Amino acid sequence: MKLTSRQLEIIKIVKENEPISGDSIAGTLGLSRATLRSDLAILTMTGLLDARPKVGYFYTGQTIEPLLYEKLYKKTVQDILLPPILIHQGTTVYDAVTNLFMYDVGSLYVKDDKDELIGVLSRKDLLRAAISNPNTEKTPVAMIMTRMPNVITITKERTILEAGGLLLQHSIDTLPVVENDHPKKVIGKVTKSRIMAYFINAGHEIEKENY
Amino acid sequence: MKLTSRQLEIIKIVKENEPISGDSIAGTLGLSRATLRSDLAILTMTGLLDARPKVGYFYTGQTIEPLLYEKLYKKTVQDILLPPILIHQGTTVYDAVTNLFMYDVGSLYVKDDKDELIGVLSRKDLLRAAISNPNTEKTPVAMIMTRMPNVITITKERTILEAGGLLLQHSIDTLPVVENDHPKKVIGKVTKSRIMAYFINAGHEIEKENY
Repeated sequence: MKLTSRQLEIIKIVKENEPISGDSIAGTLGLSRATLRSDLAILTMTGLLDARPKVGYFYTGQTIEPLLYEKLYKKTVQDILLPPILIHQGTTVYDAVTNLFMYDVGSLYVKDDKDELIGVLSRKDLLRAAISNPNTEKTPVAMIMTRMPNVITITKERTILEAGGLLLQHSIDTLPVVENDHPKKVIGKVTKSRIMAYFINAGHEIEKENY
Repeated sequence: MKLTSRQLEIIKIVKENEPISGDSIAGTLGLSRATLRSDLAILTMTGLLDARPKVGYFYTGQTIEPLLYEKLYKKTVQDILLPPILIHQGTTVYDAVTNLFMYDVGSLYVKDDKDELIGVLSRKDLLRAAISNPNTEKTPVAMIMTRMPNVITITKERTILEAGGLLLQHSIDTLPVVENDHPKKVIGKVTKSRIMAYFINAGHEIEKENY
């Protein structure tokens, strides 16, 4: 159910003037009481408004949440994952930074000769190395990366809410998405930026649909 | 209105088996048709389910969204802003990087002698400078920062949706929050990380309330 603009208007009037009679709501809207009957019935039926005899309508503050909640938060990592940038552990810090700018990404994943994930490089890892080490053209990234098993990964079946929870809990910017049966085989990435973009884009879509 | 777990269960059954009769729903749940009468009435009244005579119930795919939407997206920047870290334009790149790590932040704001905002330093700005310039201890941040008027700012009355939209549109990580009547007076910051944390924390709260 999408509430109609008139139903939303009624909720707004009740919020601001509660308790308010059906006649007063109708008067405020310049409509007849009969015209509003079915709107008021739906709003009380759904529990959004409460009607008390001889007093008037109240706003209950309740919302019908589970469905939008499920739509927003129960989507899976698969729905939003991005292609990862993987570099070899022998790559120099200098070349890693070059890659970061060339691909315009916030982090890089590091692999070994078997193409398996062995570490992650954040912008902060690279900045720390660049500012304190004059030999960035000779230092391999293997010396400065965050190394497995300290890298937090996720699989594509987990929800966006779980992915965001892991990023927050560990104060990290990126989660390599790995295969279920090959926990070192990277198939994508999920980042703070990607999750923010997901929620903001969803908000813009809901706005377009409803207003 | 919060849908009850039984109402959610009914929606799930209808989604998977539509069209399905009221008797079959009752049978699946092991309940009598009479017990379900009021649940089915509410679900059709709200438009979540559609009932066609002699055919059965359908899931309409509609959701009651505006209220959770308003709760999530119409909060303002004021509700989530963080304290900013401001450094003077004469600070060296090396000292700026030190500040970034000491305060564990992702960006720094740059002010002049009048404490007015004149620029922003992202991790990428600092990384670019650190990797390509051996004199980070002599270079002032004024030489490498993104400078006003190219800095995108926001005020505290704007919504979280608007803040997120600006971050996405300009591909930036941070928005200085400035005073309405002093557009160079910084009172806080809003970042991609903060917005992601906001949506993930809200998701965890809704989960706790409803499940």
